[in-house]
Amino acid sequence: MALMNGNSVDAVADHGGSLGRASALFPQAPLPWIDLSTGINPHSYPLFDLPATAFSRLPEPVRARELAAVAAAAYGAPSAANLVPAPGTQILLPRVASLVKPGRALVLGPTYAEHARACAIAGHTVAEVHDFDALFGADIAVVVNPNNPDGRVVSRRDLLELADKMRSKGGLLVVDEAFMDVGPQDERMDGDVDRGGLVVLRSFGKFFGLAGVRLGFAIAAEPLASRLDAELGPWAVAGPALEYGIKALGDEAWQKAMRNTLNEDAGRLDALFAGFGVEVLGGTSLFRFLRLPDAAGLFAALGQSGILIRNFNWDETALRIGLPGNEGEWRRLEKSLAAWAAKRASGTTEVRP
Amino acid sequence: MALMNGNSVDAVADHGGSLGRASALFPQAPLPWIDLSTGINPHSYPLFDLPATAFSRLPEPVRARELAAVAAAAYGAPSAANLVPAPGTQILLPRVASLVKPGRALVLGPTYAEHARACAIAGHTVAEVHDFDALFGADIAVVVNPNNPDGRVVSRRDLLELADKMRSKGGLLVVDEAFMDVGPQDERMDGDVDRGGLVVLRSFGKFFGLAGVRLGFAIAAEPLASRLDAELGPWAVAGPALEYGIKALGDEAWQKAMRNTLNEDAGRLDALFAGFGVEVLGGTSLFRFLRLPDAAGLFAALGQSGILIRNFNWDETALRIGLPGNEGEWRRLEKSLAAWAAKRASGTTEVRP
Repeated sequence: MALMNGNSVDAVADHGGSLGRASALFPQAPLPWIDLSTGINPHSYPLFDLPATAFSRLPEPVRARELAAVAAAAYGAPSAANLVPAPGTQILLPRVASLVKPGRALVLGPTYAEHARACAIAGHTVAEVHDFDALFGADIAVVVNPNNPDGRVVSRRDLLELADKMRSKGGLLVVDEAFMDVGPQDERMDGDVDRGGLVVLRSFGKFFGLAGVRLGFAIAAEPLASRLDAELGPWAVAGPALEYGIKALGDEAWQKAMRNTLNEDAGRLDALFAGFGVEVLGGTSLFRFLRLPDAAGLFAALGQSGILIRNFNWDETALRIGLPGNEGEWRRLEKSLAAWAAKRASGTTEVRP
Repeated sequence: MALMNGNSVDAVADHGGSLGRASALFPQAPLPWIDLSTGINPHSYPLFDLPATAFSRLPEPVRARELAAVAAAAYGAPSAANLVPAPGTQILLPRVASLVKPGRALVLGPTYAEHARACAIAGHTVAEVHDFDALFGADIAVVVNPNNPDGRVVSRRDLLELADKMRSKGGLLVVDEAFMDVGPQDERMDGDVDRGGLVVLRSFGKFFGLAGVRLGFAIAAEPLASRLDAELGPWAVAGPALEYGIKALGDEAWQKAMRNTLNEDAGRLDALFAGFGVEVLGGTSLFRFLRLPDAAGLFAALGQSGILIRNFNWDETALRIGLPGNEGEWRRLEKSLAAWAAKRASGTTEVRP
């Protein structure tokens, strides 16, 4: 199997979000860590008391169907029967990639590395392409929309054309809408899955700031949805995830207010970086994407001051940074950026570790 | 694909544990339901306050490794590297069955129906056999030990011989030890996985009474364990399941006391049935297995009084019954059994629901 970036099937890349890894990289950093290495909302959906039965009893099938219905409405899917609730999107990736017999997988990159790994597990040869039109040559094409980490958006019109091409040759288009909660709603594909040749992925944990409960969805035409459901089997989604999913996905008022909050926070982050001469190139309102020659120096300077951001093995000038969660975190970030900028100005920037 | 019992790949059989199904079967039953339809411990491990980060943050890889280490010690596996933590055993079944290329799957039955379904999903032809020796002809052999629902135990000596046969021909023995927490410890196979040709499955939710958190393990030699880990990907186990798993699997005092409690409860249940002339044939201390000509009448009588037990499509004289959780439930069960026995004695037993 041809794998991009020399990854093996077994090797899971770093994806940010691990304070264990942060402490290993920067053992002298002041605590507590500020984790800006993910695109997970720091303002999580309000925690509430769960019934004891959410932990003790097998999840009720009727409750999973309720979750599918609420999610279908929130995401604009044709019906609850198109929704496959899963314990996180991650575990779905090799299963979705296995819906097509082994062939040629093309991933529009650079993007989230797990898609290539999942396609390789499913027996596909995998290549990353940087031109959307190249995807038409795939047996399975993968587009993250909006893209992680750069926020690039592919239009629904283009994606529909690609999906139709895939369907006509028995292939599959996978659109990972992990960040579409804060993306352009006109470009979402959730309502189009019944055309076939298309699976859309949705992530619950990122926008709702509840990554620990593990909840994600595949959205597909019913024959594909049924196959995925059969692979997951009964009780795929844990009791706590069912309860949070049903409540939060049905809470339109919270979602609307949160989109505004995140927009304001993202604007504030861009302004903060601009004040230090760093231009934000894109991203979504859950993370921002930067490129600068001294990316390694900035990563190290922030790390040494206890702030973890995300760097990438495919471009040493690229960085991704999530949103601070409170004023204390904003102040520590601003102070660390100021110290880094001052060192840079005096020409003494350190680039270790 | 040849499937036993005429199941299709998509059809998940009833497994008990659904009060939605109970209410549909017995709409007039008095509430609340007493659910004795599973083998899940009604005395759950004590609930505790989870840190907010168990819900909000991605599960930490270091915490998952800690869980694997605690589980390896609890189950007697050679090392943490043999343990594959998963969001429930269920989701592992098709992945384990896919470790062997499509061939002939033989399941020692009658037993938990999901094994046959999982083997069919993996592309195997599936048959149920009732003679242990017949398993030697399989490419993938499945033994639930102790067995659900009848409690039959296969000796470790016999299982080792079968595992060696499987290894020698590139096959696989799957030993589902879902109820081994209360089974004969001399027969457990968890320490033998490094011989190869063997995967042992462990379920967290049943003995610890926490089926809602979704936690289970595959235990295998490292190459197989790594393949399964790669399929599940990062963050397979939710934050709440990590926290409960680490604490409960490390709590030997609770486990020891609970085994005693369950033994006493199982003895009490057998005595209760004996008092009404019903002999318990076997089971484990988490569930009891009965056969009686009027099983349908007993199922219906208990259902109409709000007590759900488990019946089976492969034997209309067989029943499985779990443990009542408190004195109120014991009293309602005794009262309902007495009413059923009185009707039976007077020859007016109804067999509907």
